[in-house]
Amino acid sequence: MKSEGNLETLKFSCFENLQLKTILLLVASLLVAAGCAAVFVNEPDAAMADRPAHHRADGTFVNTDGTAISKSFTDLLRWRWSRTEPDAMAFDVMEPDPEVLAQPVATQVTWLGHSAFLLQAGGKNVLTDPHFSERASPLSFAGPERIVVPPLSIEALPHIHAVVISHNHYDHLDEASLTGIYNKQPDNPPVFVVPLGLKEELVSYGIKTAVELDWWQSYTHDGMTLTALPVKHWSQRTFFDRNRTLWAGWLVDAGGFRFFHAGDSGYSDDFKEIGSRYPDIDLAAIPIGAYDPRWFMKDAHMSPEEAVQVYLDLNARKAIGMHWGTFILTDEEMDEPPLKLADALEAKGIDGSHFSVMKHGEVVQF
Amino acid sequence: MKSEGNLETLKFSCFENLQLKTILLLVASLLVAAGCAAVFVNEPDAAMADRPAHHRADGTFVNTDGTAISKSFTDLLRWRWSRTEPDAMAFDVMEPDPEVLAQPVATQVTWLGHSAFLLQAGGKNVLTDPHFSERASPLSFAGPERIVVPPLSIEALPHIHAVVISHNHYDHLDEASLTGIYNKQPDNPPVFVVPLGLKEELVSYGIKTAVELDWWQSYTHDGMTLTALPVKHWSQRTFFDRNRTLWAGWLVDAGGFRFFHAGDSGYSDDFKEIGSRYPDIDLAAIPIGAYDPRWFMKDAHMSPEEAVQVYLDLNARKAIGMHWGTFILTDEEMDEPPLKLADALEAKGIDGSHFSVMKHGEVVQF
Repeated sequence: MKSEGNLETLKFSCFENLQLKTILLLVASLLVAAGCAAVFVNEPDAAMADRPAHHRADGTFVNTDGTAISKSFTDLLRWRWSRTEPDAMAFDVMEPDPEVLAQPVATQVTWLGHSAFLLQAGGKNVLTDPHFSERASPLSFAGPERIVVPPLSIEALPHIHAVVISHNHYDHLDEASLTGIYNKQPDNPPVFVVPLGLKEELVSYGIKTAVELDWWQSYTHDGMTLTALPVKHWSQRTFFDRNRTLWAGWLVDAGGFRFFHAGDSGYSDDFKEIGSRYPDIDLAAIPIGAYDPRWFMKDAHMSPEEAVQVYLDLNARKAIGMHWGTFILTDEEMDEPPLKLADALEAKGIDGSHFSVMKHGEVVQF
Repeated sequence: MKSEGNLETLKFSCFENLQLKTILLLVASLLVAAGCAAVFVNEPDAAMADRPAHHRADGTFVNTDGTAISKSFTDLLRWRWSRTEPDAMAFDVMEPDPEVLAQPVATQVTWLGHSAFLLQAGGKNVLTDPHFSERASPLSFAGPERIVVPPLSIEALPHIHAVVISHNHYDHLDEASLTGIYNKQPDNPPVFVVPLGLKEELVSYGIKTAVELDWWQSYTHDGMTLTALPVKHWSQRTFFDRNRTLWAGWLVDAGGFRFFHAGDSGYSDDFKEIGSRYPDIDLAAIPIGAYDPRWFMKDAHMSPEEAVQVYLDLNARKAIGMHWGTFILTDEEMDEPPLKLADALEAKGIDGSHFSVMKHGEVVQF
C-alpha cells in the first residue's frame, strides 16, 4: 500500500497547520501592508479633556515625557536580521533554605531570576513579576526560553500576601505562574496589584483578587502599602493592544521597609521625581539588562550606566540589579550586565556594596 | 510634562512586542525563503528497513496510501486571500441532565460539539477529542474561536474512565481541557489513549496516564478495549513537527458496544479495511464538516457525500456526523454540513435515521 513515489514533500509546507494559519495570514497581510506604506499618525490635541496627561483620548497610555515607544517594523527587521544572538550561559542557582523562607528573622529579599523577587518584610511576603515557566511567550513551543531554571517552584513558595506586576509583557506577566500562585492559596489568595487596565486580564484567568492602580495611586491592604509609580516603557500582549494597559514601577511599604521595584524602564526623569517624593527608599530593584543594541532598546531599557544614574536619582539606600541573566531577549552577552554595572559604579566612585547583583535563588537580609 | 507633538506613532508598529518578535521573524524569514524557491524533496527508498509502511525513515508518518498531506505555502495564501469567511451562527445548545449523565440507564452518547463526545457504555465513560476552551489555537488571543459554547463544563462531567485523542491539531488536542480533566480526578485519573508519538506531549502537561498506540494496536483496560485505526490525515502542532506524531481513528469497545470515532480524515480505502476487520460497529462518528474549498481540503477532510460512503464502507449500524457547527475553520457555511448530508443520504436511498446529526449537548440512547 505504500508508494514512495508519492512522497514529494514541499519544503516550507510545514505551515499548513489549520490552526497556525490565522496567525500566519495576519502577519503576511501586515508585512505586505508595511512594505507598501508607513503611515504616521498625529494625535489630535485633546486640550480640554479631563484626564491625566498620560491617558490618551484613544484609550492608550503614554510616558510622562509624552512618548509612546514605537519603533517601526522596518527597524525591528533591521535589528533581527543583523543581530548575532548571544550564547546561553550557565549560572549558579542557589536553593533557598525553606526554613529561612518560612521564618525570616529579618527583612529579606530572594532573587528568583529576571525581575522576580520574593520580598519578606514586616511579616508579609510579596512577589514581584513572578515567572516560573519555561518560556516568556504566548506560545508554549516558541519564544524566549528560560535559560536558568527558577530557584524555587511555586509549591515551595511560602504563603504569599501580595503579588505586584509591572506590565503585561510575557517576561513579567506569566499566566501560568499567576494562576499557579492563586490556586495554591484557595482560601486566602494574595492580592494581585497591577497597573491600570490590567485587572481585566487577571479576571480572565479566574483571579478574583486583582486591584489596578494608576501612577501615584496607593493601595493599603493587610498592613502593606503598594504604590504605582511612573516609569518609561510600553505595553503589548496581543497583536492589537499596544499601550492599552499601563506600565509601572512599584513602591512596596511593608513593616516600614520601603522596597522600590522599577519594573521595565528606559532612563527618564521619572526617577528623580520618585526620589523626591519618596526620599527614604531602603532598597531599589533596578533593571540592568536587555540594553543592546542601544539604537533599538534605549527608549524601553536602560543601560547599566543609566541604572547607576537611576540609583543616584532615587537616592535609595541600596540597589540590586535585575532583568538580566535569565532569558536571552537582546544582544548583549548574558553575563555582561553586572560587569558593566561594576565599571559604571567605579566610574562614579560608588562602592559596589551599594548596588550589587544577586545569584539566582540568593537570599539577602537587611 | 506631556508633549502631544511627540505622539507620532507608526502604524504597523504594533508588532514591537519583544515576545512576539521571535514568532514574527520566523514567519518573515520563511516568507522570504518561500518566495525564492520551493524545494521538492524525494525521500530515499528505505526498502529494507524493518518498520511498518507508514513509518518513514526520517521519523515522520504517512497515510496508508503513502501520501504525506502537504499543500504548498503558495496554495495556503491562494486559499486565504481569495476566501470569504462564513458568518458565525447561533445553534441550539441543550444542557444535559446531570442525573442522566450520572446514572445512564442505557448506552448513551452526548455530543459536546465538534469532535467531542461523551460515550457511556458498560458502566464506562469515555471522552473523545475533548475541547472546552475558547479557541482552538496555541494562542489565547488569536486563532479559531469557539462559536458555540460547550454544553458541559469540565466540572459538570461525570467520572471519566478514558479519553481518546485522534491527533494533535488544536481543535482535537486542547491542553487546558486535558489537564482540567486529569486534575479533576487526582486519585483516579482517566487513561489518555493517543496515537503513536503523542504520549510525550501529554507527559509534558503533567499527565502520567497516557498510553500511545500504533494503527491496529489495542489497549485493554478497566473493561474497555481501545484500538487505534488508520485514517487519512496529518499532524502538526508547532512550526517544525509536521507528521512527527501519528493520527488515528478509534474503536472503543465498552460493555460490548462498539463505537468508532473516525477522527479527522479525508476519504480513503482505510474505512473499507476497518469495516472488513470490524464488521459489527454499533455507532460511527464520522466527520462531515470543514470540507470547502475542496481543492485545498480534499486530502484531509471528507465531504458529506464522502462521509456517506464511509458509513457504507464501514457497514456500521448507525452513524453521527461530527466536526461541524462549532468552530469556523473553512469556507462552507456553519449549518451547511447537515443539509448536504441529508441530500447525500437521499441520493443513496438511505433513511436519515441511520446517519444523523445531534444538537450540541444532546444525549442519545442506544
